[in-house]
Amino acid sequence: MTGRLVRILETFTPTRTAQTVAEIGRRADLPSSSAHRIVTELVVAGLLERDEQGRIRVGMRLWELATRSSHALRLRQVAMPAMERVQAAVREHTQLAILEQGEALFLERLSHPAAGSNITRVAGRLPLYASSSGLVLLAYADRDLQDDVLAGRLVALAPGTLVDAADLRRKLDEVRTLGHAVAPGYVEDAATGVAVPVFGADGRVRAALSVVLPRGAATEGALVALRRAAREIERALRDDIESH
Amino acid sequence: MTGRLVRILETFTPTRTAQTVAEIGRRADLPSSSAHRIVTELVVAGLLERDEQGRIRVGMRLWELATRSSHALRLRQVAMPAMERVQAAVREHTQLAILEQGEALFLERLSHPAAGSNITRVAGRLPLYASSSGLVLLAYADRDLQDDVLAGRLVALAPGTLVDAADLRRKLDEVRTLGHAVAPGYVEDAATGVAVPVFGADGRVRAALSVVLPRGAATEGALVALRRAAREIERALRDDIESH
Repeated sequence: MTGRLVRILETFTPTRTAQTVAEIGRRADLPSSSAHRIVTELVVAGLLERDEQGRIRVGMRLWELATRSSHALRLRQVAMPAMERVQAAVREHTQLAILEQGEALFLERLSHPAAGSNITRVAGRLPLYASSSGLVLLAYADRDLQDDVLAGRLVALAPGTLVDAADLRRKLDEVRTLGHAVAPGYVEDAATGVAVPVFGADGRVRAALSVVLPRGAATEGALVALRRAAREIERALRDDIESH
Repeated sequence: MTGRLVRILETFTPTRTAQTVAEIGRRADLPSSSAHRIVTELVVAGLLERDEQGRIRVGMRLWELATRSSHALRLRQVAMPAMERVQAAVREHTQLAILEQGEALFLERLSHPAAGSNITRVAGRLPLYASSSGLVLLAYADRDLQDDVLAGRLVALAPGTLVDAADLRRKLDEVRTLGHAVAPGYVEDAATGVAVPVFGADGRVRAALSVVLPRGAATEGALVALRRAAREIERALRDDIESH
């Protein structure tokens, strides 16, 4: 049942928020009768819901249960005041990402009305090699994970994405030396991602804090704001641990 | 299985984020062997995780699957720019709540470093009769739900909570007449909640937008900021529907 539940939940994405039971069954590779039975059971439990058109969507109750005790929420709440200061100073999209199952998972994204396009979403993912946040997370990750990513398939998301393993290894060295990642045109041609690490009390990287600037914009102001915010989040993380 | 999964998830709360398998089994009323088997299955699927001490917590993967396609996230993302403006202007906790299973469920809370205490949490709930957000949601809800709440048990959270059905009915009339709720000392003695409705394109109330002020503070400035923000969210909701 757990496996089928996960397969059903995986059919819902940021761009596919409502589906018929038949669509869910097909995409989750479940026989029609099983799909109907399980979806009905999940709707009764509130984990899925029916919308006004009778289509199925992820339930508010599931969001509540998955969120209220989650460490995603705690990390995000601890980071929010500092993120808001970055956003107010830089006036561009500001994001918090963690390393999850070999990808960068975005826990929060504050948008600015005046800011340009931005592909990332809350609870969305990007490959580690292809975004400034991912590069920060990868640069400070275990050597095994770095080797896996460098040996894996490197697909260009935009003209600037590094898809050569040797280039990428040099880039990771650069990130560790400078303590930040600048990724011009890696995810979108018109944008430059800038990210810094947020360290936990144990000295390991807990998250990457980033902004998305227009391509060609000066990065120094953003880096100063990000570096200060990262120190603030690190202090708040230590206080958060001590108060629990 | 779905019922047991929900029972297990319900044992995790904002103040109980990590538990042993034995604690989960006891609180979910499951035999020890079943608890071990199901928790192991959920950990393998990533819906639960083990922390450094071997205790169980809600998994990042469950948060991701429950969030990425949820209408909680969409409503919250649409409302965020307006909420940030309220918070910048009022410099107090700013919150977004919806009606969910007869309670006010908080989708977002922006805190201000200088602001006072605040009992609400993201993905937390409050009774409809006991908070300014809840009063707004209840005042515009179906008559049946209003009757249910007024006939139900009314428990005081603080000295100011209205626990008399006739007082509460008058308060709901006031909220509809004024178009906002002011709740001094309803949730906490030292705080006054102030909330306004956010209407959907169909004319029904989609959410309540609120701030928490120190008790006795003037409410007019906050109400102006909230009313403007509600109009802005309503416009953004219409644009959001049209773009999907």
